Amino acid sequence: MKTRILLTIGDINGIGPEIILKILNNSNFISQYDLTVVAPIHALEYYSGLYNLKINVSNIKRIEIEGNHVKVQPGKISKMSGLIAGFAIQTAVELCLKRKYDAIVTAPISKKALNLAGFNYNGHTEMLAVLSKVKQVVMIMVHNKISIGFASTHPPLKNVTGILGKNLLVDKISICYDSIINDFGINKPRIAVLSLNPHSGEGGQIGDEEIKIIKPAMNFLKKKLKALLDGPFPSDSYFANKTYNKYHLTFAMYHDQGMIPFKMVAGAFGVNYTAGLSFVRTSPDHGTAFDIAGKNLASEVSLIAAIKAADRIFKNRLKKKTKNKYI
Amino acid sequence: MKTRILLTIGDINGIGPEIILKILNNSNFISQYDLTVVAPIHALEYYSGLYNLKINVSNIKRIEIEGNHVKVQPGKISKMSGLIAGFAIQTAVELCLKRKYDAIVTAPISKKALNLAGFNYNGHTEMLAVLSKVKQVVMIMVHNKISIGFASTHPPLKNVTGILGKNLLVDKISICYDSIINDFGINKPRIAVLSLNPHSGEGGQIGDEEIKIIKPAMNFLKKKLKALLDGPFPSDSYFANKTYNKYHLTFAMYHDQGMIPFKMVAGAFGVNYTAGLSFVRTSPDHGTAFDIAGKNLASEVSLIAAIKAADRIFKNRLKKKTKNKYI
Repeated sequence: MKTRILLTIGDINGIGPEIILKILNNSNFISQYDLTVVAPIHALEYYSGLYNLKINVSNIKRIEIEGNHVKVQPGKISKMSGLIAGFAIQTAVELCLKRKYDAIVTAPISKKALNLAGFNYNGHTEMLAVLSKVKQVVMIMVHNKISIGFASTHPPLKNVTGILGKNLLVDKISICYDSIINDFGINKPRIAVLSLNPHSGEGGQIGDEEIKIIKPAMNFLKKKLKALLDGPFPSDSYFANKTYNKYHLTFAMYHDQGMIPFKMVAGAFGVNYTAGLSFVRTSPDHGTAFDIAGKNLASEVSLIAAIKAADRIFKNRLKKKTKNKYI
Repeated sequence: MKTRILLTIGDINGIGPEIILKILNNSNFISQYDLTVVAPIHALEYYSGLYNLKINVSNIKRIEIEGNHVKVQPGKISKMSGLIAGFAIQTAVELCLKRKYDAIVTAPISKKALNLAGFNYNGHTEMLAVLSKVKQVVMIMVHNKISIGFASTHPPLKNVTGILGKNLLVDKISICYDSIINDFGINKPRIAVLSLNPHSGEGGQIGDEEIKIIKPAMNFLKKKLKALLDGPFPSDSYFANKTYNKYHLTFAMYHDQGMIPFKMVAGAFGVNYTAGLSFVRTSPDHGTAFDIAGKNLASEVSLIAAIKAADRIFKNRLKKKTKNKYI
């Protein structure tokens, strides 16, 4: 049976509709999945017309979203495009929670547009957690050479340290641990934890979060999960020495600490996965790219990687379900 | 004329003495420079004996430092080794300020040992600024593929945002600008400035330091220096896209933001340069490596790169001096 995947349109003024149309045009690729687009039809018609594509938009398997009266304006941040983006996510989550679909692959949204529309979330990850009524989720960036889980998604840098705490790290690393087993099919996960401070804090000389927060969380998890947890590593030499090759997952404390090395290794082929939800959710590793929206310049390679990853993760979950009846 | 370079011993319990002995053993290499080691003789004798080296320690051109009674204990953090490390730096700075030497290349120190010994500095960079009575210096990591200047050296992450301010950025970027011209011999410097927050703050949605601090500093500098300054760039895509290839220097806001990508690109061949001093100072891009001290496992390649860089920078300064009489 093919994995039933919902593709949410994202911000209609960004590159979301364009990259979705590009993959729908690739019949060999899409024939492997049961894909349904969650979008107002006019957004797809607009870009299909703009680029003179051969695809017949009315034939696309699709769930209609309100918003056909909203003008498409490539590159523009608007309340109305934020509203459509938010509706698409809401609709997709409802359908997955009802088990009508297996996975959601989300095209990029603008947080500013989303907030203008009254959806007060910091991004997809937080919105999905709230809509699914799940207490904690983890953003994991996935690539075949490197996978990075995050203690925080994208707060302002000044808020990072305040967000971190022993309980949060225990919850988030536990979710990563379970996800490596259930979603990625690895029985004995090896996880590396990064430090927050330069040089791992140098024994408390440069910040004490390694001593007061990170190590206590790691010690607790080692006992609880019998987990193979190493660290906290100073992040610069960790990545320079490719120490991540020894682990199934690297756990980073904040956005740039993990995203800089991840994107340097993964290039355009990274996938953003939300661990901890009852359904599978992935997204491409880029934003709305407003600067190139409507110019037919966007590449669909990361969206393809996101669809492949969603399918693989769902199939891994199915296998585990067969083996472990209690899941 | 050969560049007169002082090599400070660093922490005698770290790998400093070992890598210094290794380069002194390479007569072809050292014949290009006028090298003088600033160290107590017993530290060199200890490691020379331990590794059974052929070098005759008493023939090494050297400035004696008090501390011959201090036992060498590889891997140990101690007040006495911190004292020797500090004395060596003080002596070297005094000699350079008197113009008896042109450059200092520093072997790694332990900040903890240094602080135990009563030298209350956060590291070499800060100590050199104070001893030289210079208001502001900049840590620049140098490699032929990438150079990164830093707004802050290695404060705890929670202090980073508080340290940044418009005046600090103006001062530090100005020093980088002058350094590219005078130390690296480039007449029209192109500098890229990184953002502090993820996604460059998304127009103030995720932190407003880009709007309130970074952009005003950049605008001021563009007018004052007519400088080619671009940014602030989101740091993850900046490095993933190798945008740094277009600039002579990338200006990072904090340690891990710049050090992770720098070390991923430069490997073991990075050099730490202190811009803004009247003399030249470089150091290898690694720490005391206490875990491998006394095991004859340390590589001298970064120290070699540091000596080469110090020589090149001093010669560039000399050229500028000839051309521009007012310097």
